[in-house]
Amino acid sequence: MPPPPTSTTTGLHAIAAPGRAAHSTRLEAFVDAAFAFALTLLVISVDTIPESIADLARALKDVPAFALSFAVIAMFWYQHVRWSRRYGTDGLPATLLSLALVFLVLVYVYPLKILFSSFMAAVSGGWLPSSTRIGTLDDLVVVYLVYGLGWSAMWLCITGLYLTVRRRGAASREEAGDVAGAIAVGAVAIGTGVISIALALLLPLHPTYAWIHGLPGLAYVLMNLAWPLSRRAARRAEDG
Amino acid sequence: MPPPPTSTTTGLHAIAAPGRAAHSTRLEAFVDAAFAFALTLLVISVDTIPESIADLARALKDVPAFALSFAVIAMFWYQHVRWSRRYGTDGLPATLLSLALVFLVLVYVYPLKILFSSFMAAVSGGWLPSSTRIGTLDDLVVVYLVYGLGWSAMWLCITGLYLTVRRRGAASREEAGDVAGAIAVGAVAIGTGVISIALALLLPLHPTYAWIHGLPGLAYVLMNLAWPLSRRAARRAEDG
Amino acid sequence: MPPPPTSTTTGLHAIAAPGRAAHSTRLEAFVDAAFAFALTLLVISVDTIPESIADLARALKDVPAFALSFAVIAMFWYQHVRWSRRYGTDGLPATLLSLALVFLVLVYVYPLKILFSSFMAAVSGGWLPSSTRIGTLDDLVVVYLVYGLGWSAMWLCITGLYLTVRRRGAASREEAGDVAGAIAVGAVAIGTGVISIALALLLPLHPTYAWIHGLPGLAYVLMNLAWPLSRRAARRAEDG
Amino acid sequence: MPPPPTSTTTGLHAIAAPGRAAHSTRLEAFVDAAFAFALTLLVISVDTIPESIADLARALKDVPAFALSFAVIAMFWYQHVRWSRRYGTDGLPATLLSLALVFLVLVYVYPLKILFSSFMAAVSGGWLPSSTRIGTLDDLVVVYLVYGLGWSAMWLCITGLYLTVRRRGAASREEAGDVAGAIAVGAVAIGTGVISIALALLLPLHPTYAWIHGLPGLAYVLMNLAWPLSRRAARRAEDG
Repeated sequence: MPPPPTSTTTGLHAIAAPGRAAHSTRLEAFVDAAFAFALTLLVISVDTIPESIADLARALKDVPAFALSFAVIAMFWYQHVRWSRRYGTDGLPATLLSLALVFLVLVYVYPLKILFSSFMAAVSGGWLPSSTRIGTLDDLVVVYLVYGLGWSAMWLCITGLYLTVRRRGAASREEAGDVAGAIAVGAVAIGTGVISIALALLLPLHPTYAWIHGLPGLAYVLMNLAWPLSRRAARRAEDG
Repeated sequence: MPPPPTSTTTGLHAIAAPGRAAHSTRLEAFVDAAFAFALTLLVISVDTIPESIADLARALKDVPAFALSFAVIAMFWYQHVRWSRRYGTDGLPATLLSLALVFLVLVYVYPLKILFSSFMAAVSGGWLPSSTRIGTLDDLVVVYLVYGLGWSAMWLCITGLYLTVRRRGAASREEAGDVAGAIAVGAVAIGTGVISIALALLLPLHPTYAWIHGLPGLAYVLMNLAWPLSRRAARRAEDG
Repeated sequence: MPPPPTSTTTGLHAIAAPGRAAHSTRLEAFVDAAFAFALTLLVISVDTIPESIADLARALKDVPAFALSFAVIAMFWYQHVRWSRRYGTDGLPATLLSLALVFLVLVYVYPLKILFSSFMAAVSGGWLPSSTRIGTLDDLVVVYLVYGLGWSAMWLCITGLYLTVRRRGAASREEAGDVAGAIAVGAVAIGTGVISIALALLLPLHPTYAWIHGLPGLAYVLMNLAWPLSRRAARRAEDG
Repeated sequence: MPPPPTSTTTGLHAIAAPGRAAHSTRLEAFVDAAFAFALTLLVISVDTIPESIADLARALKDVPAFALSFAVIAMFWYQHVRWSRRYGTDGLPATLLSLALVFLVLVYVYPLKILFSSFMAAVSGGWLPSSTRIGTLDDLVVVYLVYGLGWSAMWLCITGLYLTVRRRGAASREEAGDVAGAIAVGAVAIGTGVISIALALLLPLHPTYAWIHGLPGLAYVLMNLAWPLSRRAARRAEDG
């Protein structure tokens, strides 16, 4: 008689390591609080309380750029939540990787805000405001470098958290598959960041051939490889 | 022999989904931290530490406007708490809706503060201070639009959270009634905001007929329909 | 045979309502986060990062005033923790009183900082710095009023939390005694604040008789009555 | 027959006091939120949102100094977590010591940031930026004093937390050894800070003999004594 088909469920809550407590550890509480603060400071620009109703309306034009950076940071928070819900420990390696993730998020809050707001300003032809401008081609290279570095470094932390799970050994075939899939996603994400950085540094930024300048940004479409490759890695690990 | 009369209790804690854990999930911890932070930044104006005792006394005049915006934001927090206490999950749709609520609250912290402080300044004939002024009729339209948009969007998140409960199916008649009632409250609130926005955009703002300018604000008395309509919807769902 | 003498234990953890869960409720998480932010903003003056080593040394002179205001606010936090550890619910009255406490704390963070830093400057003869000065006798009256109002209002919230416990009925004689004692402490504290305010308003502030100006501040020695009166009220309630 | 060899496990999670609940107490929640907030304000300089892409690149040069101060503060947070995971109570002495630790951390956030950023500027020969400069020898003495005082005071809190455990009596030989070891680490750390302060105050700071000025900083190599001394103290307590 077959066991109940729990191993075929696909929901987010389907897998939970047996020893995984349901309550929040202090590491999780710390990570949550730091992410919540980072997002708050992202959205609420402490310095610029609007002084007139017209300013207020203008300030709301920042909302699309905020929404984009909010989404990116919330995505990293969700990656951490997903990992900790399934395999989370507060051992030393996981603590160090989580603290590193928090540190990187805090460092990248304002750069992200600036990158996305200048991006939105460029895309909307200046209708959406930005206090910073991507004025020169050198500026553009810096933007690609900073974003690529932050992106790769944060994914490195997430991937590292799953690597600690693999090192201590998976509890089941299903768990091995899930971990392998998550590591594959991380590898694709880190690779994407590195390729974007390499393109930004190596491509000749020539004012005449404007289309070249978009290539390092276009590199992020490589993220579409994450899901198919992740499913293949998961299947192999389950079989293997 | 009748079952024990649990379905007639009316207290706040009467209903709790069976699988609902008592501990906080990380999503809840995140939402609480972000709300607490938003309210802190609402009340504590980081930039304006009073520099003399007279300034201090003047700063305390901001308290009524703070109290109003504090109450509005705390009300949304309480709506989230009430939902999560009864039906809360941290599945993907609930996570996305909660993150959207947090985002909207963060975006609306300063606008709310400005709206209420200029409102209190207008109501008190300028005795209560406001750094921003609703100077022109155009300003007033912007105030109505911003408040109406924020109000409706935040209620949309709350209502969406209850809709996810309805979609997965209610555990009991009582639960079905409670969810239907909460959705009715949300519908009334969203409708009120939309009507206020429509009035602000469509009404001729004419300097001579000053009473017209109050109509978009008066629209919020429609919120009084929320409780009777909610009770009717709850009764229908319990019977149905 | 007598029951085990649990009713004679006097430690802080001795009493806990039977239905009192050990985990934090979301209300508690919210209150903790808000208090933590308030204290952080109290100590870290966001605006004034020192720019030279000499500034840094000067900034550390603010520490005594910070320590005093930190202690006052931490005391209110501890009162809330003590109440919630024993009787805490997150019903509507307790939620509203806790939110009111958080609101008052946020409102009073900067006033407290200013009051204590000008107090320390006055006491140290100006060696300890203060950006605000209690320059005139009118300033002094304002200081007494603001501090007295905040003190009484915050104690009103704490006392209200214990009154909700009394209203729903105590579970045991010991609990009735504990609640009565806490309410007595609250009554003394509120009375002290009111007397200080009354003195500040009614006493003739005359430049010649300088000692008069200290009386509203001296009123706070009445707090010494709190513990004997609280013990008497507790004993009566246990007997009654 | 020997008992199961639990006393030989060496992992971080090996020891946990029997009565130690797995959930976070409110004290822990408070400490976590305050630390998270302190670290956020450490990294995110609220006042200095970069205004151009070149500013952004320059701002990233602050990252090494941030990382150092982040690491120091995170280390103190981890010490508190380690203590509270094993022996944590929220009795009055532990609460007061934890609040004192939070207070000290908040007071030392900006000084740490300044010390490390001027240290990095000095070490990198000015390539890494610093808004503050250690210009004179007197400045250097102040830096040593401030760092030494903060270091010793924070370790005093941590050590005090372990002393409260020793006072109430250890549950087992293994626990006695762990506590004795932690107290030994604390004693070495406090002693190191005191020696550094003494050197800074007593050594003749003479512009000609520049090497002397490094001695108070070099004193922190004494921290290397912490682990051997701690292991010796632990072994003695286990035997004793």
